[in-house]
Amino acid sequence: MTTTPNPLSRVRRRWLLTGGALAAGGTAIGVGTAFGGRTDAGTEPSTADLGAAVVPFHGPHQAGIVTEPQAHAVLLAFDLRPGTDRAALGRMMRLLTDDAARLTTGRAALADTEPELATHPARLTVTFGFGPDLFAAAGRDRDRPASVEPLPAFGIDRLQARWSGGDLLIQVCADDPLTIAHAQRMLVKDTRTFATTRWVQRGFRRAAGVGRTGATQRNIMGQLDGTVQPAAAYHDRAVWISDGPGWLHGGSTLVVRRIRAELETWDAVDRVGKEFAVGRRLDTGAPLTGAAEHDPVDLTATDSLGLPVISEFAHVRRAHTPDETLRILRRPYNYDDGVHPDGTPDAGLIFASFQADIARQFIPVQRALAEVDLLNEWTTPVGSAVFAIPPGCGPDGWIGETLLA
Amino acid sequence: MTTTPNPLSRVRRRWLLTGGALAAGGTAIGVGTAFGGRTDAGTEPSTADLGAAVVPFHGPHQAGIVTEPQAHAVLLAFDLRPGTDRAALGRMMRLLTDDAARLTTGRAALADTEPELATHPARLTVTFGFGPDLFAAAGRDRDRPASVEPLPAFGIDRLQARWSGGDLLIQVCADDPLTIAHAQRMLVKDTRTFATTRWVQRGFRRAAGVGRTGATQRNIMGQLDGTVQPAAAYHDRAVWISDGPGWLHGGSTLVVRRIRAELETWDAVDRVGKEFAVGRRLDTGAPLTGAAEHDPVDLTATDSLGLPVISEFAHVRRAHTPDETLRILRRPYNYDDGVHPDGTPDAGLIFASFQADIARQFIPVQRALAEVDLLNEWTTPVGSAVFAIPPGCGPDGWIGETLLA
Repeated sequence: MTTTPNPLSRVRRRWLLTGGALAAGGTAIGVGTAFGGRTDAGTEPSTADLGAAVVPFHGPHQAGIVTEPQAHAVLLAFDLRPGTDRAALGRMMRLLTDDAARLTTGRAALADTEPELATHPARLTVTFGFGPDLFAAAGRDRDRPASVEPLPAFGIDRLQARWSGGDLLIQVCADDPLTIAHAQRMLVKDTRTFATTRWVQRGFRRAAGVGRTGATQRNIMGQLDGTVQPAAAYHDRAVWISDGPGWLHGGSTLVVRRIRAELETWDAVDRVGKEFAVGRRLDTGAPLTGAAEHDPVDLTATDSLGLPVISEFAHVRRAHTPDETLRILRRPYNYDDGVHPDGTPDAGLIFASFQADIARQFIPVQRALAEVDLLNEWTTPVGSAVFAIPPGCGPDGWIGETLLA
Repeated sequence: MTTTPNPLSRVRRRWLLTGGALAAGGTAIGVGTAFGGRTDAGTEPSTADLGAAVVPFHGPHQAGIVTEPQAHAVLLAFDLRPGTDRAALGRMMRLLTDDAARLTTGRAALADTEPELATHPARLTVTFGFGPDLFAAAGRDRDRPASVEPLPAFGIDRLQARWSGGDLLIQVCADDPLTIAHAQRMLVKDTRTFATTRWVQRGFRRAAGVGRTGATQRNIMGQLDGTVQPAAAYHDRAVWISDGPGWLHGGSTLVVRRIRAELETWDAVDRVGKEFAVGRRLDTGAPLTGAAEHDPVDLTATDSLGLPVISEFAHVRRAHTPDETLRILRRPYNYDDGVHPDGTPDAGLIFASFQADIARQFIPVQRALAEVDLLNEWTTPVGSAVFAIPPGCGPDGWIGETLLA
């Protein structure tokens, strides 16, 4: 792996040179910087019409990563058709980039058959990822980051092929479900000559305008989910890639895990038991050693019997990552795919994390969780996929050009 | 069928006597009255927090019918377990009513395992319906309205059992998808001793706050859908039942049709062809004989060749119902259940219509459409179900008491 002195500066410079700054009117780079803030121009929904809000597509990084999570998401994975080589991949990514840039600004796709459905972007973002086998298809396997490969098997996994793997990922997020449905349809059309659809996962969070903007949200199990994230100041090291293959500088990696919630047995546990398993209070999300959600987790605190307040097996201890540069940026969505005849729900979490380095950041935490996390009792990973996330592009460029051009 | 002189007055009197007016603080009846207006107290989402908006559960009619449609819906149908008799049905409906009343006001269900998920009602409504076979199970078959039975077969139908029928219906609507998921889970739990889940259909419209409030929405085919509805002044005759079995006065009937959109072939038609099939312009929704969406449809207009401007086979002509008392109240949602491997979408419409009388209002229109509507080329009914919708209840009552008590 080669290391360059200031690779992200180089990414930004390249983007500026290809016209990005001109398109952005010479202003600062217009992409989101952090969850919880919505401080970026263009990402704050208008109170007049949530549908009019635009997240800039172009920039040194792809949108939909550090963008404050939208209410709805669909993640689609594709298998490349035999014979889809580097040139074909380039054609596909040019088409996809062009349509994504249009749709995210409320314009119809190039061959849009229902242009009236494109008029409410509602913070639409489209994020592309490359799975492990795409690199060989492109004749670029030497440019594959070493950790963009199927994750090691964990004892807790009950993986199903129908929720795992994939050569190409498209993550579509917006605050409006009809906007998502339309964008998905247009983008899938762009892929059809080149790829077949492998899996589709649709997820949701709270609707835009419900609850406090930027607050940590609850997942379908009722837990506040996403309290600990790398702060924006650490994104350049925790989220964005700045070493390894040069084509990926300014990019990231994405791990998608479909995690079924065993809600039946979870519901059978009382609140004390649930809080013991998580290491946090269910109502406030505060660690059992604190009073408020963002209070630090004190792993050394003991109770009157001398036992740790936060169990050795509590989720919050196993996931504890004090070094912000090693934290993963979680961007999870709930899924609810209905009810089995006996009334048990088919619901859970589409866990999605972005990190600069899967091997250094994701796997150690996942290994610690897979070993003894108490929450494993009520969560079952049924899908797993890993993607390299190329850097963003300027208005004259396309996503993936640094690998495929 | 018996006819009473002023049955809806009687319904309202009964509700007042059972305490409804007291609970409502002596004010006017607090349920929605019409689409497009949002004039009712409590149904206008707050700009501060869309999640705080409450649609009153109690009233002479159930909520979720003339309520301005929320962004999200799940419709669930259940089969009664053998032995679920009138007494058991009464127990189930008391449980369901109690939890629905709690959840719709942002309170936890009685046995709520995740009470923190109940705090954002987001205009949550829960609407109950009784399928044809529930009446015999309750020993009340003579009280079944004659037209609450499986619809006659139409030549266009390709019905699948997994999307059809059901003894009990629960329609859950809200502007927030997590609110829906939680309410669904709590309500399904209430049914599990008494029934098994037959089908679950999840649907969506534009998110709350996207686009103009009360505007006609586009469906997933891009058409403005729902332009012609019975005006509020006609709801007492078009929507609410005032003759036939007395237990149902103040109630309604619901037809649910799952209609697959043949988007592949629809996309292959040009705009002129699409507009010819519908009889309206795609952009404005105006009839081909007018300039604006709500202009009257002129079925007599001819072009320079003397041919009708609106074809004999156009959807708008076949569905034309000038008598407002015969119009059905459509409350449709889009569905999008993913993508087949070849990239073709599994999407369409959850058509739902409320009407006082299925035989008088729904079937004639459906028959006219099934015969020669051009849109049949691109839409395929794959599911069908029919329910009686009991009247509402006061705070001391429960839905279904007029049949089951």
